[in-house]
Amino acid sequence: MNKSSDRVLVNGRPAGRIHPLDRGLLYGDGVFRTLKAGSGRIEWWADQYAKLAGDSHALGLDCPLEEQLRSECLELAKGEDCVIRITLTRGQGPRGYAPPANTSVTRIVHASPLPVYPPQNLSQGVRVRWCTLRLGQQKQLAGIKHLNRLENVLARTEWSDADISEGLLLDREGWVIGGVMSNILLMRGKTLFTPDLSLSGVAGVTRTRIMRAAMRNGLDVRESQLRPQDIYRADECCLCNSLIGVWRIRMIEDMECGDRGWADKLRNWLNEIN
Amino acid sequence: MNKSSDRVLVNGRPAGRIHPLDRGLLYGDGVFRTLKAGSGRIEWWADQYAKLAGDSHALGLDCPLEEQLRSECLELAKGEDCVIRITLTRGQGPRGYAPPANTSVTRIVHASPLPVYPPQNLSQGVRVRWCTLRLGQQKQLAGIKHLNRLENVLARTEWSDADISEGLLLDREGWVIGGVMSNILLMRGKTLFTPDLSLSGVAGVTRTRIMRAAMRNGLDVRESQLRPQDIYRADECCLCNSLIGVWRIRMIEDMECGDRGWADKLRNWLNEIN
Repeated sequence: MNKSSDRVLVNGRPAGRIHPLDRGLLYGDGVFRTLKAGSGRIEWWADQYAKLAGDSHALGLDCPLEEQLRSECLELAKGEDCVIRITLTRGQGPRGYAPPANTSVTRIVHASPLPVYPPQNLSQGVRVRWCTLRLGQQKQLAGIKHLNRLENVLARTEWSDADISEGLLLDREGWVIGGVMSNILLMRGKTLFTPDLSLSGVAGVTRTRIMRAAMRNGLDVRESQLRPQDIYRADECCLCNSLIGVWRIRMIEDMECGDRGWADKLRNWLNEIN
Repeated sequence: MNKSSDRVLVNGRPAGRIHPLDRGLLYGDGVFRTLKAGSGRIEWWADQYAKLAGDSHALGLDCPLEEQLRSECLELAKGEDCVIRITLTRGQGPRGYAPPANTSVTRIVHASPLPVYPPQNLSQGVRVRWCTLRLGQQKQLAGIKHLNRLENVLARTEWSDADISEGLLLDREGWVIGGVMSNILLMRGKTLFTPDLSLSGVAGVTRTRIMRAAMRNGLDVRESQLRPQDIYRADECCLCNSLIGVWRIRMIEDMECGDRGWADKLRNWLNEIN
């Protein structure tokens, strides 16, 4: 599946296009999910749908029925491993910020090839850097995977070195929030720490699944305000998202990070049914 | 010109549609302008184009040539008074936050009917309220009219009372930033104050024109950090944008505001050639 064979359904219509007055385009008024699908299955579908429904609810969007979305994802995947992006917008409306009284959600399901990452990202871990961009704080949007992602875009332009796999982001107050495209997890003793995302960042499904699995496996799990020094002091730090799974952070800029075998363990837990 | 007669050019193509992988939709990766056009003219075109070019530059987008955009605006206006929205996005790209090496800006020019506001908004002023949403702070995006406008959308959902014409926004630190769809101006003696927008808000063209005109007319003009009490203590407060022009704030919630005739004066200055 290459770029030219990208497949899309817009409100169920193959090769559909978007109206220029769609509020997803006008204002970024919508939410999205990125997930893996393959032969007859969608990875972590129940969690993905629950997150999509929750994010939709937070913005006052009507989330389509689970079965409709699931069948569209499977239709596009056509049995091949691929990335599915589901985007929901508040639909078309007249100009102006006020959401129209009667809106009809625009539903976009798009399949594209799986990204190819160096195999050593899994086997040895990755090198990351600190981004200079500081994330704004907005409690009404924090945690939600909405379409206002310019901060991520700008942060991602800060480096082009292929040896750097991810950038780490602080918020305006210097708290660690996560990676540009991933969440961060820290191990210290038998405790798994992950940033408190009540003011910034996206609370991803992979993070949630790992937290749940870690609790079930007897770890203490804490969402906390974390500083860069907490990252450096950790036994091991990992990044996660639905496409990469779990990567250990091998180096932050020129500083080596700990390796206690947690990345493999978390990765195994992540793939358990839970 | 009614809704069904909305007219649009997408990269010059009439009734064009947007690809679902356009980064304007994926990430809100773009900028826009809203302006008035009429018979053979576009209001404040030089300022509007300069702001669009500046905002594009800030995000690393190639702004189309002035003459191309101008002629598309005039083509759509067809000699009728209307609102033109110009949207520029980073164009299509593969999934992922990193802007592709070779992008081709998507250029959307859309004409819609002029909004109809109560005539007394001009003659008597408007009633406004304080929004509870607090704007995040992001110095790399502040001032720019970009497509990440969920904060404005959420703030605008806080009221539906038609008697309230605008909501006033504070940032997370309690500084006054402006209205949901407008900038705010305060008069005190011979000084015009307007909020410092280096961390939040949109620095609109109408605000810039009024500041320039006020300086030329001998006022002291200051961009400052302002608190709500500065609003209450002002001789007069006004709102401005390209569609409303200048409205005096008559009441903030149930509190009457001053009236020293500045709104009419600023409105006249705004329309001078400058």
